[in-house]
Amino acid sequence: MVAALLPRERLLMGPGPSTVPNRILRALAAPTLGHLDPQYIGYMDETCELMRQVFQTTNQLTFPVSGTGMAGMETILVNLIEPGDEVIVMINGVFGGRMKDNMERCGATVHAVEIPWGQSFTLDQIRQAVADHPQAVMLGIVHAETSTGAFQDLSGIGELLHQQGMLFAVDAVTSMGGHDLQVDAWGIDAIYSGTQKCLSCPPGLSPVSFSPLALEKIESRTTKSRSWYLDVSMLKNYYTGGGGRAYHHTAPINMVYALREALAIVVEEGLQPRFERHREMHQLLRSGLEELGLEYIPDHSLHTLNCVAVPDGVDEAAIRKRLLNEFDIEIGGGLGVFAGKAWRIGLMGESASEKNVLTMLAALKKCLGD
Amino acid sequence: MVAALLPRERLLMGPGPSTVPNRILRALAAPTLGHLDPQYIGYMDETCELMRQVFQTTNQLTFPVSGTGMAGMETILVNLIEPGDEVIVMINGVFGGRMKDNMERCGATVHAVEIPWGQSFTLDQIRQAVADHPQAVMLGIVHAETSTGAFQDLSGIGELLHQQGMLFAVDAVTSMGGHDLQVDAWGIDAIYSGTQKCLSCPPGLSPVSFSPLALEKIESRTTKSRSWYLDVSMLKNYYTGGGGRAYHHTAPINMVYALREALAIVVEEGLQPRFERHREMHQLLRSGLEELGLEYIPDHSLHTLNCVAVPDGVDEAAIRKRLLNEFDIEIGGGLGVFAGKAWRIGLMGESASEKNVLTMLAALKKCLGD
Repeated sequence: MVAALLPRERLLMGPGPSTVPNRILRALAAPTLGHLDPQYIGYMDETCELMRQVFQTTNQLTFPVSGTGMAGMETILVNLIEPGDEVIVMINGVFGGRMKDNMERCGATVHAVEIPWGQSFTLDQIRQAVADHPQAVMLGIVHAETSTGAFQDLSGIGELLHQQGMLFAVDAVTSMGGHDLQVDAWGIDAIYSGTQKCLSCPPGLSPVSFSPLALEKIESRTTKSRSWYLDVSMLKNYYTGGGGRAYHHTAPINMVYALREALAIVVEEGLQPRFERHREMHQLLRSGLEELGLEYIPDHSLHTLNCVAVPDGVDEAAIRKRLLNEFDIEIGGGLGVFAGKAWRIGLMGESASEKNVLTMLAALKKCLGD
Repeated sequence: MVAALLPRERLLMGPGPSTVPNRILRALAAPTLGHLDPQYIGYMDETCELMRQVFQTTNQLTFPVSGTGMAGMETILVNLIEPGDEVIVMINGVFGGRMKDNMERCGATVHAVEIPWGQSFTLDQIRQAVADHPQAVMLGIVHAETSTGAFQDLSGIGELLHQQGMLFAVDAVTSMGGHDLQVDAWGIDAIYSGTQKCLSCPPGLSPVSFSPLALEKIESRTTKSRSWYLDVSMLKNYYTGGGGRAYHHTAPINMVYALREALAIVVEEGLQPRFERHREMHQLLRSGLEELGLEYIPDHSLHTLNCVAVPDGVDEAAIRKRLLNEFDIEIGGGLGVFAGKAWRIGLMGESASEKNVLTMLAALKKCLGD
């Protein structure tokens, strides 16, 4: 006999997943409909429309990829890159590097521009990259680098790329729903996110959006996408109604219920108040962490993810273990070059409340002081 | 304000998803843990172990792919095929054809053997295919063709392929948990399924298993897999404990809870009694459908999916619509060459009960008679 499933109720303040509110868990557990049921198609359409509101876009091709955030990254790249294409990727952490790996698997010649982890790019650095590789068809950059907590200002980049005829691809996994993200105003052509970060939904889907310009590139491909599962030329018939909602694959029905509820919560709160809440909670946490003598690693910190250096002589894993076992609080360790040297404290969606910040600080203080 | 989510409680008797029992929906809605939380890792390990029991295998590399069934197909193919490899695919419906498309995207030279839809392959036909293409590295075949309802006997094929040094890849989307499926005894090297069919779990994961022989092929690759998201050389560190449970991507935590519960239900019922229940319910449904004058399309019908021809003069879509709207019962229409000409009635997992079969027959009789 298999033991009962009794997961502890953790306060999730790591790099994701974030704490999922009961309202979303209840939506997740609603009765499963068929993926071609008109009632389900209605819920799916509403989900895509809510996603447009949160992405601040009118892009018709906006839908949840049936996989976690990294499936979203792959969806953007396998559809927009043809073998032999030249592309640029800006790397300042794990996820830029992952984009590079993924681009190479698509058969692209990749021009990577790397700066030290924790730093963000200036518009001049991006201008230079474009000038150095004018034949590139796309530039990829990470809005919110989950591995370092670095925030990347995206304004001005789209204009620069479009002048050169390049597409603008963005990783917004840790920013969507927590930081301002203006897909249309900033000229973003392709973007992906995850559900388990600032949307406070369980992991399992990746919201993506493609601009009309990106769709043109997809429609003018001379080779098939390397992925059948993520091939937008077929998926768009299911998600945007072309071709009579043709079946492609069975969508993760219940996860879509949960995402719809999560997006509804974002829209009910309002985008600006929500971004402001994340900013305020970041400031509250930051003051508290600095009072404890902890220093932020990135030059420009995200509000949603706070990456601090572990003080000399402190066993970082032991502290995380105590937080988990004694307080049911999860925070993250460092990733890549910061492994063993950093903590990553998430303030995403539901987790970004005054109560949680104060609880977190009190528990961390106790663990550091003991 | 977004309207409340109130999906109707349908009886799902189409080609999947099947009706999800409350016990599984409750597991789905359990509190979300982090994907590196030791408690979650424990649940994940149990899920993989239960999956081995249902696949009847000792393959260490057995895990749920973070996507729906077709992501499982893609996982098998992107990992086992290198560009230039020759492969064989047996096609008798939509899903064999889809495997071919997918194999081509992996850069393989594909030898397709096609027979009319609704038929199953004989061992002689497979022997001939192997003899015609002795240089092929793999043969792919569908155990349960969801588009036609055809059952494929898999015994003897593994031995035949292994004598020739070929790998044996199987689509078991509509059979796992409903039909006998002996991965080890039948010499299957790579297999994928879906959660939303005979396991009666919501869609969102694809159980897969790789034999040691398949793993050898993966480890001897000279090129990277075309997919980063589905790259087994990295995924195995997370799922089988190598490399200290290295983070790859964020697993769909709550979906894994649901799958664990679904597999527990299968194991509690017992594999043989469960297969026998599906056989009995198929016979009961078959007698009833034949009494209504309906004829089965495939030569060898699955127990889990019953594909019957729509009588002349009957509007197939109108009948399905009435079943849905008047009785809250979902059945499927025909796919591919059978579009508009067939109904597909699923008897999968929770849906395969006497009560449901009798309800289904009574409702269909009423719709046909009115």
